[in-house]
Parts: sequence; structure tokens; C-alpha cells
Amino acid sequence: MTDSPGAALRDLRESKPLIHQITNYVVMNETANATLAIGALPVMAHAVEEVEEMASVAGALVLNIGTLSRHWIEAMLLAGKAANGSGVPVVLDPVGVGATTFRTDTAKKILAEVDVAIVRGNAAEVAALAGLEAQIRGVESIGVDAGAPTIARTASSRLGVVASVTGPVDHVSDGTRTLAVANGDPLLATITGSGCMASTITGCFAAVRLDALVDAATFALAAIGVAAEDAARAAAGPGTFHARLYDALYTLAPDALDERANIDDA
Amino acid sequence: MTDSPGAALRDLRESKPLIHQITNYVVMNETANATLAIGALPVMAHAVEEVEEMASVAGALVLNIGTLSRHWIEAMLLAGKAANGSGVPVVLDPVGVGATTFRTDTAKKILAEVDVAIVRGNAAEVAALAGLEAQIRGVESIGVDAGAPTIARTASSRLGVVASVTGPVDHVSDGTRTLAVANGDPLLATITGSGCMASTITGCFAAVRLDALVDAATFALAAIGVAAEDAARAAAGPGTFHARLYDALYTLAPDALDERANIDDA
Amino acid sequence: MTDSPGAALRDLRESKPLIHQITNYVVMNETANATLAIGALPVMAHAVEEVEEMASVAGALVLNIGTLSRHWIEAMLLAGKAANGSGVPVVLDPVGVGATTFRTDTAKKILAEVDVAIVRGNAAEVAALAGLEAQIRGVESIGVDAGAPTIARTASSRLGVVASVTGPVDHVSDGTRTLAVANGDPLLATITGSGCMASTITGCFAAVRLDALVDAATFALAAIGVAAEDAARAAAGPGTFHARLYDALYTLAPDALDERANIDDA
Repeated sequence: MTDSPGAALRDLRESKPLIHQITNYVVMNETANATLAIGALPVMAHAVEEVEEMASVAGALVLNIGTLSRHWIEAMLLAGKAANGSGVPVVLDPVGVGATTFRTDTAKKILAEVDVAIVRGNAAEVAALAGLEAQIRGVESIGVDAGAPTIARTASSRLGVVASVTGPVDHVSDGTRTLAVANGDPLLATITGSGCMASTITGCFAAVRLDALVDAATFALAAIGVAAEDAARAAAGPGTFHARLYDALYTLAPDALDERANIDDA
Repeated sequence: MTDSPGAALRDLRESKPLIHQITNYVVMNETANATLAIGALPVMAHAVEEVEEMASVAGALVLNIGTLSRHWIEAMLLAGKAANGSGVPVVLDPVGVGATTFRTDTAKKILAEVDVAIVRGNAAEVAALAGLEAQIRGVESIGVDAGAPTIARTASSRLGVVASVTGPVDHVSDGTRTLAVANGDPLLATITGSGCMASTITGCFAAVRLDALVDAATFALAAIGVAAEDAARAAAGPGTFHARLYDALYTLAPDALDERANIDDA
Repeated sequence: MTDSPGAALRDLRESKPLIHQITNYVVMNETANATLAIGALPVMAHAVEEVEEMASVAGALVLNIGTLSRHWIEAMLLAGKAANGSGVPVVLDPVGVGATTFRTDTAKKILAEVDVAIVRGNAAEVAALAGLEAQIRGVESIGVDAGAPTIARTASSRLGVVASVTGPVDHVSDGTRTLAVANGDPLLATITGSGCMASTITGCFAAVRLDALVDAATFALAAIGVAAEDAARAAAGPGTFHARLYDALYTLAPDALDERANIDDA
């Protein structure tokens, strides 16, 4: 029997995994609401005094370096190691890697000290992390030399993770197998945090597909992509799209997801 | 003459109390907007250098431990004591108490050092704080042994506060008198921060009912509950519900609130 | 050839300047989304390890003291000096100045150590900063002795900045020339962060009008004002207004902005 995004979504809604997120100030509300909307339970906790306890009991841990500072990095490392010790998958969102030395060094430090399961970023971020040529302005990808499938494949091999590269078409690779997801809407790029939401939803699916992380990452991108298509139809711009995106994640039916998910070998 | 939620709402809108909030990163925008929508003035300030000055001139102080760290706890204690010294009521939202030792210890420390007027939480949080059996996953209540009225009554007696326990039906108690509020909509549970908003609105009403804190807490829950009913009618899911909730708080008419508030002895 | 708000908006959308923002927790998501909606690129970064690198390559730097603490002030000063060194214009939003000594002192310290191009605040904040009589409750202006044009003119002369004072009618002055902008909608005052958004959009326009900062500040207020007028027409209260405001900033046409901008000598 083949697995499917809809089947994983059903499992997610039944088990309601706790998704521990140490993420940036800009999108905390957004990723918490996306977690609830898709059917899981969010918890934000960043104090060094509690992150290990929280990460150990979570279904997945999402680390996002969008607004870094020293104490938060310390907490991410502690939480990551605790998650590793308890078999909890870790998703890393390397926001803005390549934009400053501090961000690049921090992402590399996390990858060195924590066993990261999935890295989810835009093309420039993942390319920069993998040592490929890339240009980034702030946190926006504005140019990469390699194609997205190559970036995903190379990053996966070099970093020892499942690499999930989002863009007009998304690409997920474990180094051997590379899949393309062609869902979504251009309005996703007009709101802050849509990438961060993709990382969080990746964590939600990882929590119910521990042994199939390429599928988890792919299913997650299909889910947010299909929801974005629904949201765009009801939107008059970025603000109403944003509100409708939660509606669409919440009302997303597993059967519709299976039917509309546009996943192919890359 | 009997007091009513509508009368308190009228007072609130006329006096526009300043509500000082030291709250979590996830919901700051939400609770600030809820404060404005109901008709009061929010201010967020957490620096140890200024919290005492701010809390002393506020109409109420709301402490929320949703995303704790050491310096914020220090600020909460300073602000709480300053509020006590100036007769400013303090509302505590013990987010996630029971989920980690750090949260439980912090909430107890605040209760020990600050004279808290009202504790507003979900059943598991308030039960955990009162020493009753409870299960919490992250920040979500997933099971309690006692019924909500008992939790409210017990917490009130043991902690020396007005206990406000929200859920499908809300319960408010001062240990002797226990009231039930049966307003609201299930969509409240699909957005993050709805509990935090309830705590903030409790602070708004406490600022205009200093000598009737059970009423204040009850009126606040009726107000957000009735607003949620209006918002749900105009919503297609959590995202549009969220936007409509501010509309509904803003347009809530005192007379309609009195008519629709569903408050009874528990 | 005369410059116009629409011409500047066209330039902004073509060059997509990076707007580095060190701002408060309450509005980070809002100001990032407003930046994207108007057509620029936001980046939030506050770590002392990276703010200089980020500010140096930005099109503008926006400093906002809405939720201060010691490390953030340090970062603001570092970023401000780096921006100065690279010719990047600095916008200061003195949120809540006058409400606590800490905020007043911090805003003055920033003005003393950083060459600030534009100060954008409400009447009470800018008056307090300029040493004029003002009353503030939390972060809301509740009374000033002088009229807004006088406040703008005096603040500009005394502080050596372009002063941008928002209110029912906005006033922008460089000490000699003072302009009034009569766009907007009362719903702006019902959501938190609308002032902070105005400061951010001021940064967006400053990035493309480095040598005409009075114009930049004026055009920015006309742009958010016209967008607010559009948003208000589609709104049922503060929540739907908030969502529609991003829609309106995103769909704002340069020609319509030129036609509807209500800018006059004050």
C-alpha cells in the first residue's frame, strides 16, 4: 500500500503531535496558528531552563534562526540535543543564512552539534549552507547559480539531511531520491513567514512519518501549497490571503489533498 | 441596582484604562489589539528599568508566562510588586503550567511574591497550580480529574485569588461564590492566544471593577464569548474568525452584551 | 520635473530596497508585512553580532523603541552608527517617549549618538522629545499644548532631524518647510502598530529619496493614508481593516496615489 499526503494528514489530526518551536519573533504567532490550523499542537519555549524537558516530549522540534541572539542559540543547541536523545525529529529553518556571517556560522554550528533531520529553506539559503554560490538580500533569495533540484541534492549529500528547498516549484531530496512539488501560489511570497510556516508544517508531518522523512517534507509542502491555492481564490491581496490561509489549512480535506497534490520525480 | 457586563463595558470605554501587559512573544500583537478593540489602551513594557514606573500608573497589570526567560520573570516580579503598592489589580495567566517544572515553579514564585487578584487559565493549568491532578500537552489542557467548577473553587481557596477557568463553559470563583459563563464558540480553540486575550480582557474589566473582581472576570469572559459568537457567524475558518473577533469586540454593544451574556450560578 | 508620491512608489517597487528593522515584539510581523506589501524587502535582526553587517547593506534602518531592553539598545546604537557610516538613512520611532524615564532617556541617547534622518511619532511623543509639554498614557498621545505643525517644526529645529508627526492630519517638517498630509482613516487608531507601520514605510520611501527626506516622509504618510482609506471601505471593524490594509498597500497604484494624496503646505 502506498502512503499519501492525505493519509499522513489524517494521522496528524488523529494524533495531534506537540510541535516544539524555537523560532523568530516575527512569525511566532503565524507558525503557532498554522500548527493549530493543520491539526497539531504548538508550543513555544526558549528558556534554557525548560527547552530540554519540552523537546523530549515533543513530536517534532523546529529550530528557526530568523531573529537570533546568543541565549536563543544556546537554547536551540540544548533542545536539539535533547530531541536527538529522545528520537524526536529536528527541522532546521536557516533563515537568512548567507546574509550575515553570524547567521551562517550559527546554522553550521547547529548542523555540527545537532542531528538535524530536515533542512527547509529557500534556494539561496540552502545553497549557501551547502557551499554553493548564492545571493541573498536580507532573508530573500535573489539569485542562485545552480538549479533547485541540484541544490536540494547537493545539500542533502553534503549536510546529511533531507533537504527541502521551497520556491515556485519546491524540491525535496535525500541525496538519492529527489521530488518536485508544484503546488502553491505567488501570494505566498507576499507575506512574511510563509517559509517559516512551511518549516513548521514540515515538523507536523515529520512527527507522524518518522521513518519516511522525504515523504513527510513533500507531503507538508503539498499541504501548504494546496491550502495556498484555496486561500488565493478567496483573497484580494496579501492580508486577506493570510487570513484565508489558516481557513484553508483548517478545512483541507485529506481526499482533496491526495487528489490535488502535484508531486513528481525531479 | 445590579451591576451588569454592559455597564462595566460602558465604564471601560469611557475611562479607557491603561493595561500594562508583560506577556509572551506569540500573542503580544493579539492581546494589544484585543485591548484596543474592547476600548482600553494597551502598553507592553518588560525592561526592569521601566516596569515599575509603568505598572504604577496602569489600570491593571497582566502577567503571562507563555514564553518565559529569566529577565522577564524578574520584570514580572518587579512590576507585580509595584502594582500591589499602587492598588493596581494583577491578573496572572499561567500558560503551560504543569508542562515543565520551570513554568510551574515560576507561576508559584509569582503567586508567592505578588498579590495576584485573578488567575485566568485553562482547566489543566489552574488545576496544576492548585495541586489537583491534570494533564497538559505543551500549553493545551488534555485532561483533568476534577470538574471545572471544583477546580475554580479549589484554586481560589488554595491560592487566595479569584480563579477564572476557561473551557467550553467557563467558571469563575472566589471560593464561596462560583459562576458559570456559557458563551463562546469552538473556533476560539483553533487560534493561538484566545486564552491570553481572555486574560487581557479580564484585566480591562478588573480596571473598572476593582472591588468586584468575580464580576470583572465573569463580565470579561461573557464579553469575549459573545464577541466570539458574532465572529464565528462571519467566519470561514480560524483565520477569518481571528480577524472578525476584533471587529466583534470593537462593535460589541453594551445592551447586546447584557442581553446575550449567559451567566449563572455554577 | 516635480517629484511625486507615485513616482517614488514606482522607484521603490523597482529597486526593492532592503529595510533593516530593529523594532518591538508587538509589531514585527505587521511591519514586515507592510514592507512586503508596499514592495520593499524587510529584514529583522537585533543581535549585536550581526546588526552592523546588516545595516551597512540596507536601503534604510528603522529603529523603534516600543519594547526596549538593554541589549536591544546596544544593538540599535551599533546598527545606527554602521548605517551612518554607509550613508544609510535612519528612521527613529520613539514609541512611548514621555511615558517612562527609561524610554525618554533611550530615545535621547539614540539621537545623541546616531545621526537620525527622520523621527516619526505621534504628537505627544515628538513633543516630549522636543521638550514641549505633552501627556502620554502608555504609548497613546492624550494631550499636547502646542499644535501639530508647531511640534513638527520645533522638533525638527531642536533635534536636527526631519520630524514626522502623525495624527488626524499628519505634519512633516525640516524646520523651514512644513507639509500637512490629510489622508487616512480613524480605523488606523484602532489597531496596534499602525504608527510603527508608518515609520517602516517612511524607511521604504527614504531608501529611494535619500536627498529629499521631507518628500520621503510625506509620500510615505500619503501612501499609508490612501491605503487606509481603501481598507476602511472594505472593513467591518479593526480586524478586517487590518487584513485589508495589506491588500490596499499591495494593490496601491502609483497613479491613484498621485491623484488622491492630499499634501499641502501647513
